[in-house]
Amino acid sequence: MTNFTKTKSLFHLPKDIIYLDGNSLGPLPVTAESRVSHMIREEWGELLIKGWNEADWFIKPAQLGDRLAKMLGAPPASIILGDTLSIKIYQALASAIDLAADRKIILSDTGNFPTDLYMAQGLISTINQNHELTLVEHEEIEASLNENIAVLMLTHVDYRTGRMHDMQKITRLAQDLGIITIWDLAHSAGAVPVDLTAANVDFAAGCTYKYLNSGPGGPAFIYVAPRHVNNIKPALSGWLGHDAPFAFDLDYRPGPAIERMRVGTPPILQLAALEAALDIWDDIDMANVRAKSIELSEMFISLIEKNCPQLILASPREAAKRGSQVSFHFRDGYAAIRALIERGVIGDFRKPDIMRFAITPLYLNEDDIIKGAQIIADVVNSGIWKQDKYHQTNPVT
Amino acid sequence: MTNFTKTKSLFHLPKDIIYLDGNSLGPLPVTAESRVSHMIREEWGELLIKGWNEADWFIKPAQLGDRLAKMLGAPPASIILGDTLSIKIYQALASAIDLAADRKIILSDTGNFPTDLYMAQGLISTINQNHELTLVEHEEIEASLNENIAVLMLTHVDYRTGRMHDMQKITRLAQDLGIITIWDLAHSAGAVPVDLTAANVDFAAGCTYKYLNSGPGGPAFIYVAPRHVNNIKPALSGWLGHDAPFAFDLDYRPGPAIERMRVGTPPILQLAALEAALDIWDDIDMANVRAKSIELSEMFISLIEKNCPQLILASPREAAKRGSQVSFHFRDGYAAIRALIERGVIGDFRKPDIMRFAITPLYLNEDDIIKGAQIIADVVNSGIWKQDKYHQTNPVT
Repeated sequence: MTNFTKTKSLFHLPKDIIYLDGNSLGPLPVTAESRVSHMIREEWGELLIKGWNEADWFIKPAQLGDRLAKMLGAPPASIILGDTLSIKIYQALASAIDLAADRKIILSDTGNFPTDLYMAQGLISTINQNHELTLVEHEEIEASLNENIAVLMLTHVDYRTGRMHDMQKITRLAQDLGIITIWDLAHSAGAVPVDLTAANVDFAAGCTYKYLNSGPGGPAFIYVAPRHVNNIKPALSGWLGHDAPFAFDLDYRPGPAIERMRVGTPPILQLAALEAALDIWDDIDMANVRAKSIELSEMFISLIEKNCPQLILASPREAAKRGSQVSFHFRDGYAAIRALIERGVIGDFRKPDIMRFAITPLYLNEDDIIKGAQIIADVVNSGIWKQDKYHQTNPVT
Repeated sequence: MTNFTKTKSLFHLPKDIIYLDGNSLGPLPVTAESRVSHMIREEWGELLIKGWNEADWFIKPAQLGDRLAKMLGAPPASIILGDTLSIKIYQALASAIDLAADRKIILSDTGNFPTDLYMAQGLISTINQNHELTLVEHEEIEASLNENIAVLMLTHVDYRTGRMHDMQKITRLAQDLGIITIWDLAHSAGAVPVDLTAANVDFAAGCTYKYLNSGPGGPAFIYVAPRHVNNIKPALSGWLGHDAPFAFDLDYRPGPAIERMRVGTPPILQLAALEAALDIWDDIDMANVRAKSIELSEMFISLIEKNCPQLILASPREAAKRGSQVSFHFRDGYAAIRALIERGVIGDFRKPDIMRFAITPLYLNEDDIIKGAQIIADVVNSGIWKQDKYHQTNPVT
């Protein structure tokens, strides 16, 4: 059994803060600062260029990919770290379209995170071969699958409501029609159990700075099913994805397996922080995390609904259909979130009216949920969010 | 006048090491560790998600872009940080091809760094509209320009020999024929004076971990001439390049000016290290750096040629045609570099026979050059590099 009292002690959490925003940026693992400092001082400072060999910088994206693979039901050498999620989605999409040959439609839902849709639009415009991005409501996905569709690209857990697709079922339905699947795991990795092999997923990508706690701008990851990886021709054919990067050949030749999804020089400082963050996951049973997340989420929903009738549940009521977050509709959610942050309860707001709270058992316990729910009720019921200052916008909101 | 005794004290250099590899990875600025630690502890740790506003994380790529712009003769809001150089080259190429309308040829030289060529190959294959990458020898570039060429993509300073193109002249010749220019500044930024405005460059990109000393995997940068930037349609249309990223619209709409070349979440730890590295450049006159680099390079060439006749100069003899590195041909260069590294002189090797040494006045002085040249002569002349152990290959060489 995962000891959640122990895991909570592995994070630095600011005094008097209840942090319900781990779906946006995970908190600081207590070992991350010293890990990064060590990397800077002893590796960059002392080894200099030799760090690429002697400190394993060069193989770090694959090493950490293998550690993530264990968490996500993927075989070794099927996941690699690097770049941002947007870039990894572009790579997956370009490869998937290529595999799909003559089919022209990319299907997604309106609940997908916009950058996935934007990257698809940019790729479609670059390819300029009459591909189309078709968006339907999330509940219409299954009925919309047909043999004209090249690629189904979905985010597993909706960033606004936490609504979760049935990855295994939808993948099977899609594949029965010859459709290639891409799953965005931004709100899944470290949040809910994922088994890429059991679900027979074709491509997946995700980020590490949310539930995996790698810090702001931590590298993204990409998964390619072993059955595809040697058949794909990378669109972003960077030198570190070359079969022999240090041969400096003039022609690109893709590297073995997932190595070909590397592009340029990996961000070694961010990877050091990610490594510290992944250490925490070594002793953790994801089934325990899921059970605890559901227990805390049910408690949170019940407290908010009891004490705060103005907030209307936006997440699925059925726990099995929800990721590791709980969201509520509230017309003045933006101002209410600002007022909450000022009182030490950090959640966030998503347009048009969503108050979003991540439930992360690694560093949140029952007391946090009870206290957080109480402060939310106090703030919403008091109407203090009506003050002008809470209605001013930030560059990042 | 730049005080180079002072600038040397701003770097951590390992004991008994003469570091002649700053064209591969710059050394550690002494303030970088504490800067990154502060960012981790006080910003990530204490501000958590609020760091995006309160610690300026969101605007950091543009803020640091403006600082780089001052060094590179570019106006404010024309340079932005992020991703890797390979990705930035892809963005520049996709935009340039789009501007070039019906022309199909991308011209480059065989001295370009391979990732630029690979990214062009990947883009050409993705566009699938009969674009072609044509490579000529570097001295044939001017004679190869014609009105069928869409884009001229060159690396300003050759990564192997340090041979430098005349950026201003070639840009003008190309533009007279309606060709769009892309300059890779990997071995130029922080190495030689660059004036993007005076040279009327269309696009440029570069990395920060070489002569700018931002640490392994530091973010890349891209420049787009203000006359083009509002006409380009990003191929990598990520959410942070959107006009209103937090509106979460379903359709991409490019952001203002260079903001549209942002893609995903920026690497905040790497940006903190870059910020510490850029502080050093604030008080530096690039003309002084160039003069000192030439003085040290001439001294180095003269000492090596005098004491080490087996090494044949691979760099241009004329200082004005050379970047901030000096290279020599030596058949057993790989083994000789290995033997040198063991003796504290760090240079590197590039196939087929190039021994490469960066001359970086910010942290190298006359004593280092004299001592380094002496050890190189001792190692090469003694034949100690014939030992088997120096002929074994590393993953990264």
